[in-house]
Amino acid sequence: MTTDTLKNISKSPVTGKEYEIPSSPDDKKGIDAFMALHPGKKVVVVQGLGFVGSVMGLVVANALTEEYAVIGIDLPTPQSYWKIRSINEGIFPVIASDPKIDEYYQNALQKRNYYATFDSHAYSKADVVVVDINLDVKKQSSEKNDLEGYSVDLTPFKKAIEAIGNNCKEDVLVLVETTVPPGTSQKIVRPILEECLSKRGLPTDKLKVGHSYERVMPGPKYIDSIQNFYRVFAGTDDKSTAAVEKFLRTVIRTDEYPLTRLGNTNATEMAKVLENSFRAMNIAFMVEWSRFAEEAGVDIYEVVNAIRMRPTHKNIMLPGLGVGGYCLTKDPLLASWARMNLFGSEEKLHQSEKGVHINDKMPLYAFEYLQSQHKGSLEGKKVLLLGVSYLNDVGDTRYTPVEGFYDQLEIEGCEITLHDPHVKYWEEKDLWPNHQLSEVLGQPYDIIVITTGHKDYRNNTAMIEKIKQLPACWVYDTIGVFSNDEIKSLSEKHTVKVIGRGDL
Amino acid sequence: MTTDTLKNISKSPVTGKEYEIPSSPDDKKGIDAFMALHPGKKVVVVQGLGFVGSVMGLVVANALTEEYAVIGIDLPTPQSYWKIRSINEGIFPVIASDPKIDEYYQNALQKRNYYATFDSHAYSKADVVVVDINLDVKKQSSEKNDLEGYSVDLTPFKKAIEAIGNNCKEDVLVLVETTVPPGTSQKIVRPILEECLSKRGLPTDKLKVGHSYERVMPGPKYIDSIQNFYRVFAGTDDKSTAAVEKFLRTVIRTDEYPLTRLGNTNATEMAKVLENSFRAMNIAFMVEWSRFAEEAGVDIYEVVNAIRMRPTHKNIMLPGLGVGGYCLTKDPLLASWARMNLFGSEEKLHQSEKGVHINDKMPLYAFEYLQSQHKGSLEGKKVLLLGVSYLNDVGDTRYTPVEGFYDQLEIEGCEITLHDPHVKYWEEKDLWPNHQLSEVLGQPYDIIVITTGHKDYRNNTAMIEKIKQLPACWVYDTIGVFSNDEIKSLSEKHTVKVIGRGDL
Repeated sequence: MTTDTLKNISKSPVTGKEYEIPSSPDDKKGIDAFMALHPGKKVVVVQGLGFVGSVMGLVVANALTEEYAVIGIDLPTPQSYWKIRSINEGIFPVIASDPKIDEYYQNALQKRNYYATFDSHAYSKADVVVVDINLDVKKQSSEKNDLEGYSVDLTPFKKAIEAIGNNCKEDVLVLVETTVPPGTSQKIVRPILEECLSKRGLPTDKLKVGHSYERVMPGPKYIDSIQNFYRVFAGTDDKSTAAVEKFLRTVIRTDEYPLTRLGNTNATEMAKVLENSFRAMNIAFMVEWSRFAEEAGVDIYEVVNAIRMRPTHKNIMLPGLGVGGYCLTKDPLLASWARMNLFGSEEKLHQSEKGVHINDKMPLYAFEYLQSQHKGSLEGKKVLLLGVSYLNDVGDTRYTPVEGFYDQLEIEGCEITLHDPHVKYWEEKDLWPNHQLSEVLGQPYDIIVITTGHKDYRNNTAMIEKIKQLPACWVYDTIGVFSNDEIKSLSEKHTVKVIGRGDL
Repeated sequence: MTTDTLKNISKSPVTGKEYEIPSSPDDKKGIDAFMALHPGKKVVVVQGLGFVGSVMGLVVANALTEEYAVIGIDLPTPQSYWKIRSINEGIFPVIASDPKIDEYYQNALQKRNYYATFDSHAYSKADVVVVDINLDVKKQSSEKNDLEGYSVDLTPFKKAIEAIGNNCKEDVLVLVETTVPPGTSQKIVRPILEECLSKRGLPTDKLKVGHSYERVMPGPKYIDSIQNFYRVFAGTDDKSTAAVEKFLRTVIRTDEYPLTRLGNTNATEMAKVLENSFRAMNIAFMVEWSRFAEEAGVDIYEVVNAIRMRPTHKNIMLPGLGVGGYCLTKDPLLASWARMNLFGSEEKLHQSEKGVHINDKMPLYAFEYLQSQHKGSLEGKKVLLLGVSYLNDVGDTRYTPVEGFYDQLEIEGCEITLHDPHVKYWEEKDLWPNHQLSEVLGQPYDIIVITTGHKDYRNNTAMIEKIKQLPACWVYDTIGVFSNDEIKSLSEKHTVKVIGRGDL
């Protein structure tokens, strides 16, 4: 057990600093002091300080046409409490390559208009509550060939909405940005809030509930992916719709990126999960073609590049180690679950679920292939994994496919070395990857695997030279980062295999 | 039985003229007379005078940097013989909205450099043979819920290649443009040609075989889709590759649309079927989402339009009556068949096959939905189908999904009226659709179905007014051509349903 899993300690992976979690959820004093700084300003409370909420808070604190007082709120847990403290202590909890993050945060520090807390009392001050908490899908454990089970538990999400309802003003606007099963705003959020208000003896006719999903991309355009991008929105009634639109216009550059209003919140919620299902599906579609290419002595990368010349086919995907991130791995399941559980259909979304399952099995395929090439066992092999994050050139490890691959290697008894230039700390595994490529390549391995397509591994002559100097080993490129010349050069000494590329 | 199914008659659907099919396949005189007109010119024989070959012939006859003598060749069958005669008599057999077709044909007539024949003797004159014949997949009969069987019979294709091999020069370039199962050029075409040459006592080392697939789109940019578009190519050996490239540079505007050379013909053949499988899959993917939208009271069209704002999601598809045309309906199956039968894999391309099956069932879904809304029977109903072709604004009926839908209505005992502004003659059904929208809307129906998304049916106020004047009936929009206002207006009198659009 590591220190940060202790219940009353929350450790910042950014600074290493440890915070004791307060025993009482009371921060009235802090909230009131913050409010006193901003008399007359509208108050926006952002619920959830994760990858979306913490940065959404920044964007609202730097709104375009209004001066808001922003309160970010999250739970006093080991995973989240350090973020609250960090925001208030002048260190932004998200590390990203986007320089605007720091610029916006410094602005907010100067204006003192972004406060973070764990006390639900904050909701009582809110004119707008933006819901940016997670809504997770629980998948079954990754036993071989049985990755298809999953469950959706709305309990934590409902509790979070209750916390708003038990404290909010009767005329608050609750804007859901969380990716939810279609139907949630109308069938779950609004009824819970109305019930809470009624229990408190308050009228429900002034309540406003809407949905507008974010399209946040952590990385160099982090802020722009919120502020300078198209938004889709709807309200649960006309009053709500108008309120959502009014709010979004104050924070998003709607002159350049016009808002899209849909007929109802079921439609906006469906749009979000459909967007991501489309992408997940397009990846899954390529998996079997990638195998076919290997069998037919074809290089799928050159085939896909040829196809991408067509404007209608630009987004055809490439194979890889697997699919990661918070969205593509679960959104199709949320949708399928909603179809059956919120709209009473007897049919699931078969194709979309299948897509997720195919993607989930990709790391297992890579592992089994390696195993089959080593007489069925990798026990005791020294393995270097180049890349830990799920996406090129960012340090995001949420649901990274490298995790499933790593787990298999660990179960098998491999001695694993990790490298990633962007991942300082691998939270989910409590591991600290090495950052020095030349250092990790200074020792021999049985197997070297390219597990993420970072720029650092592409056209990197020094890396290729280093690998060439190592004793003969297996080099497995699961992403297609190597050029033909590099493959040829490495093959003089090593055994080189590329997913989606047959022996030409 | 209709006249054009008589074995010795071939009737032109363009002019109505009937031709007697010659009993002997001898056209030496005609070929020699044509050759005498073009001494010293290189001869290109285009095998197959269908939607691709007849127009490819035109493009080669109007090559950019070389003067070719072009011979188009097809079989003397009721389906094809009229095309041969038509080309030689000054009437181009393909009707298309592209004015360049006529321009190119008039040029060729003036230069007298495009001759058509049915005599294999033509191959003996060829420097280049371009293979543009069909290679079909036979699907099982459309019994309900069992549309998943199919077979690939290469016999006619092999015979066509043999006809070349039995006549060609030893140094001919055979360029396959037909969409073939990956592996065909290397494993089938080249061996057949070599065997034929050997039998004729000729050496095989000068033979050149390559593959470069077309991306022809019948319609207003027909010629451009051949001459002004990206091409992918490869040869079965270096000599072949060089010859293919040299030939393509003379006919295609490669300065603006650079050629893409792939590693081998397996790769180019795979690229073509992968392109089309990608599209077929993206359509199939939307089918279940379209149903979900109906259940959730969502308008899938507005959802998809919102998603298309994202550059990475521009090509997300819309639901419809089904999928038609010569490519998307079969190419994924060709690929899957090749994986198992030419490369010995034990796995088919499951996802891609499934996509085709889902698409094939779409017209059946539309039929069954209509049936369910009419107490389980449509017997004796007067039904108007607006649109016969498979694609908006063109007159192409090959594998149109309207056919399966029509067949079901016919079996059920409906009285069907057909309208299509672009289809003069529906060859596959031997039917002549009405062209006058105001005329077909001058009588009452029980059911009016939008079956193709032609422009003529969009924002057509006169059409909406005409329908409003008819007695109350069912209006079923399977494509989403009606606007919200039109739906509202029609709903005052009629029952209006749109595929992919719930009751809002």
